[in-house]
Amino acid sequence: MASTLAALNEASDADFVATLGAVFEHAPWVAEAALPQRPFATVEALFSAMRDAVQGAPEGRRLALLTGHPELAGRAARSGAIAPDSIAEQAAAGLDRMSEAEYARFEALNAAYRDKFGIPFILCVKRHGRASLLGTFDARLESAPDVERRTAEAEVMRIAAIRLNALVSGPGPLATTGRISTHVLDTVRGKPAAGVAVDLVEFVSATEAVLVARAVTNADGRTDMPLIHGRPVPIATYELRFGLGDHFRRVGAGPGLALPEPPFLDIVPLRFGVGDPEGHYHVPLVATPWSYQTYRGS
Amino acid sequence: MASTLAALNEASDADFVATLGAVFEHAPWVAEAALPQRPFATVEALFSAMRDAVQGAPEGRRLALLTGHPELAGRAARSGAIAPDSIAEQAAAGLDRMSEAEYARFEALNAAYRDKFGIPFILCVKRHGRASLLGTFDARLESAPDVERRTAEAEVMRIAAIRLNALVSGPGPLATTGRISTHVLDTVRGKPAAGVAVDLVEFVSATEAVLVARAVTNADGRTDMPLIHGRPVPIATYELRFGLGDHFRRVGAGPGLALPEPPFLDIVPLRFGVGDPEGHYHVPLVATPWSYQTYRGS
Amino acid sequence: MASTLAALNEASDADFVATLGAVFEHAPWVAEAALPQRPFATVEALFSAMRDAVQGAPEGRRLALLTGHPELAGRAARSGAIAPDSIAEQAAAGLDRMSEAEYARFEALNAAYRDKFGIPFILCVKRHGRASLLGTFDARLESAPDVERRTAEAEVMRIAAIRLNALVSGPGPLATTGRISTHVLDTVRGKPAAGVAVDLVEFVSATEAVLVARAVTNADGRTDMPLIHGRPVPIATYELRFGLGDHFRRVGAGPGLALPEPPFLDIVPLRFGVGDPEGHYHVPLVATPWSYQTYRGS
Amino acid sequence: MASTLAALNEASDADFVATLGAVFEHAPWVAEAALPQRPFATVEALFSAMRDAVQGAPEGRRLALLTGHPELAGRAARSGAIAPDSIAEQAAAGLDRMSEAEYARFEALNAAYRDKFGIPFILCVKRHGRASLLGTFDARLESAPDVERRTAEAEVMRIAAIRLNALVSGPGPLATTGRISTHVLDTVRGKPAAGVAVDLVEFVSATEAVLVARAVTNADGRTDMPLIHGRPVPIATYELRFGLGDHFRRVGAGPGLALPEPPFLDIVPLRFGVGDPEGHYHVPLVATPWSYQTYRGS
Repeated sequence: MASTLAALNEASDADFVATLGAVFEHAPWVAEAALPQRPFATVEALFSAMRDAVQGAPEGRRLALLTGHPELAGRAARSGAIAPDSIAEQAAAGLDRMSEAEYARFEALNAAYRDKFGIPFILCVKRHGRASLLGTFDARLESAPDVERRTAEAEVMRIAAIRLNALVSGPGPLATTGRISTHVLDTVRGKPAAGVAVDLVEFVSATEAVLVARAVTNADGRTDMPLIHGRPVPIATYELRFGLGDHFRRVGAGPGLALPEPPFLDIVPLRFGVGDPEGHYHVPLVATPWSYQTYRGS
Repeated sequence: MASTLAALNEASDADFVATLGAVFEHAPWVAEAALPQRPFATVEALFSAMRDAVQGAPEGRRLALLTGHPELAGRAARSGAIAPDSIAEQAAAGLDRMSEAEYARFEALNAAYRDKFGIPFILCVKRHGRASLLGTFDARLESAPDVERRTAEAEVMRIAAIRLNALVSGPGPLATTGRISTHVLDTVRGKPAAGVAVDLVEFVSATEAVLVARAVTNADGRTDMPLIHGRPVPIATYELRFGLGDHFRRVGAGPGLALPEPPFLDIVPLRFGVGDPEGHYHVPLVATPWSYQTYRGS
Repeated sequence: MASTLAALNEASDADFVATLGAVFEHAPWVAEAALPQRPFATVEALFSAMRDAVQGAPEGRRLALLTGHPELAGRAARSGAIAPDSIAEQAAAGLDRMSEAEYARFEALNAAYRDKFGIPFILCVKRHGRASLLGTFDARLESAPDVERRTAEAEVMRIAAIRLNALVSGPGPLATTGRISTHVLDTVRGKPAAGVAVDLVEFVSATEAVLVARAVTNADGRTDMPLIHGRPVPIATYELRFGLGDHFRRVGAGPGLALPEPPFLDIVPLRFGVGDPEGHYHVPLVATPWSYQTYRGS
Repeated sequence: MASTLAALNEASDADFVATLGAVFEHAPWVAEAALPQRPFATVEALFSAMRDAVQGAPEGRRLALLTGHPELAGRAARSGAIAPDSIAEQAAAGLDRMSEAEYARFEALNAAYRDKFGIPFILCVKRHGRASLLGTFDARLESAPDVERRTAEAEVMRIAAIRLNALVSGPGPLATTGRISTHVLDTVRGKPAAGVAVDLVEFVSATEAVLVARAVTNADGRTDMPLIHGRPVPIATYELRFGLGDHFRRVGAGPGLALPEPPFLDIVPLRFGVGDPEGHYHVPLVATPWSYQTYRGS
């Protein structure tokens, strides 16, 4: 249940722990350890106290924090025996809608990982697209144990930060969100292009792309909301696809000119990779019927 | 058998007709009609004489020129009972490699067309990609008979022009070829980008693309040969796909900077439509690791 | 003395007229005519009432509104015998700092204009740069009297709208301001270029440019304030001049590369014309050491 | 008197030396030293033999080669007592058209230089614009004597290479020329912009620019000849100025749209620096009425 930082600073110890007990999976002791430092001026300060509690805990507790995490797409997840946040996170990544063959692949990867490192594979799934999730799994299986231990703890922190941001509103929120936005300019007219259909697709493999968002540009040539926002942008290759041909069919191609059929530019794809889920990817399209340009803007 | 215009101007009447008799399908009389006007100063003048012969012929002969044409992907084509040029032209368009279902669709279209117009469907297939070919067939079935009659004759002229150009070399060749070319500039360095892999694919349907050409840029950032040249560019939607990420991995992304993983730009697709098969489509890529531009150049 | 719309709606009749009496030069009757329509919901509605009063006034009053206007750079202006707003407006346009020769030219133009049209030359000088002001004067001397009469009245309205906006704050202000803004992107890095010096100059003749504004880009690659804002952008040809060479000297030109001397791009001028003083001219620079682009953005 | 390499290979010793004796100022012994190595396969090989002769000569002769050179804009130059090639070279750089003040400055620089280094200031003037020439003079006065000695000899070689290229035609000419070229593309139409006026100016100081070349684009959007070619491009800051506004006034700005007055883009200046006189500076303009781009192309 979400709360404000002010309310948490005033809450009873029991309510404080009840609210924040699940930020670290199966580890309400982390919230308990932060209790004495109230009041917190910012959400960042609260998170910092919880992170310090984890990093200062004895090895047994730190390890338990890792071993207590559910596997990705594992049996526990499928049977519902994991924390509600984990269920939602895995569902958002599509891990509850896999084929039997895909489950089998995850089972095999999970087993190999647990055999090698003695802990479940932990990943902040909200920061990864499907292809990145599998690629990361493969890559981390090749890590050295001490490197991987640090990586697992860092992922636990990322998961906790997102959960905390969702639970507690207040000054100094954690930087856990990124954005994909766009802007379409018609340089025949020197004006924003309104009414342009924009699709955002994510490549879930080298050849398969799934629709992630769909919008139409407004009078300022932008979409009313960023295409992805309020969450990390999953690491993936994306393509923005603009209905530029339809725009110029509508407003006219040029002085006394008709567009050829097919037009030189019709659906314009801008393909780009996201490697920084907390970054702002502003990807504008500056176009005429015969030219276009894009760049990472700001 | 190919010849020079000079040789044809000197050849015996019989040899002249033997060489040019198949320019118009099953109609050596067209070549015969051009005989008295020898010598021809240019290939264009020769073609002009043949076209005038067709246009001045009695209706019966003109109609026979159309009815004598083989259907696209029709029974005659499949049994080999058509002119060798027609076999090669249809094969180049992939019409000899269709599934039974596709053949069935062509048979149905051919039958509907012949029923409505009394002539076979005639199209200069070298000027069309697969999707355009089917779209054109559908569209022409809706034409008025007099419009369609003129369209069919214009297509016969286009087929003949390409055949004549292939048969006769000399001054004033007919304009029957187009080009797709590209050029890659690395504006981090202000230099051509060498060694960049470039694929050209053609969309044979809204979602399926087939590889048409593959090349690597040379020291001037161009491909040694245009990606399509020496023939009409089939009307279609194309995509150039550039290995830009590999280029910047190789030469370096920027001062003291590593490319992110995945890079912002990796495979860069430029999608464009060709509506003028005899046009020159120069489609350059002007790029950094974080921006690119294209335009129809010259 | 500035006021709020709410206060004016409540003010005594005398105070209302005292506040707005100079919106139309020497014509407090316009404010008086608007009195009965109080309260006004927006500044636009107030202006509309005043404009209607003018347009509905008898010819004598309307003509007096024109004949009562001071000449540009005329004797009245030089001796101070004009309304304080007019003094400030003419001073802002540099009309109080002209050479004797320039004054003489204005005197001659003013005399010719008054001879031809019987009214002084009226122009909303805040909407014109020096070159445009002289060019407009020359052009309007060639107008037909009825066209010129309408033009003069339209200019009176423009002057009044700016004065009213300055005097009255409240909902629905009049659209009397434009903007020149910029944004510098470094596409070697895919990031805003911070610390770039930007000069804005105005061409006061075909060859002479004067500095209008000077700024340095902030962390977002923008200037903290638009280079011109809060007023009409004078109609003129401008040049933005960016210290791009210094930027790349500072942050590095490319992987292992030094900038040549002189660099390919050092001071980058973007020259553009403003014809719509109430428009927003966003003129970005998207650049590498070897390329740049601009466009009218939004 | 110009010759072919083939003719020189066959010429009498006296004719060979007569032809090449002035390649190195007042030093026919260099040509004599190359004589025994005839025949030369390329102009480069001939130059290489002459350069080796210089570099293998005793110190006295090498020094004489430097001391024998005329000063820039010096008394010898003004009185005509220098080699004809030197006269022409200095004249091309405008050194024969200086004011008395400028001569005085050169006299002072020449004197200071000779005092410090014991040789005249030697510079291949064809490779420098006016501003670069003075800047280089100032900078070299600060050099260490051994560095400056090598610099002076390198300049002698550059001067000799240009003279040799002008005298002898044949395979393997020396790389002594660069180019400035342009190309204008109208991306409203996706076509080259024909009939666009292009001026090339050189900045002879920070604020003064002089016209260097003037041309109009042809049907391919290029100038018939590069704006500078067949010689080194003088090191300088240049500006290409395009009559883009006139182009769009002529062909139309957009569908049903008039250009504003003044147009957003009218005269478009592209300012760029040349630091490599033997380089090819291709500086295209890709434009609409509301946007443009340039880059160093190839």
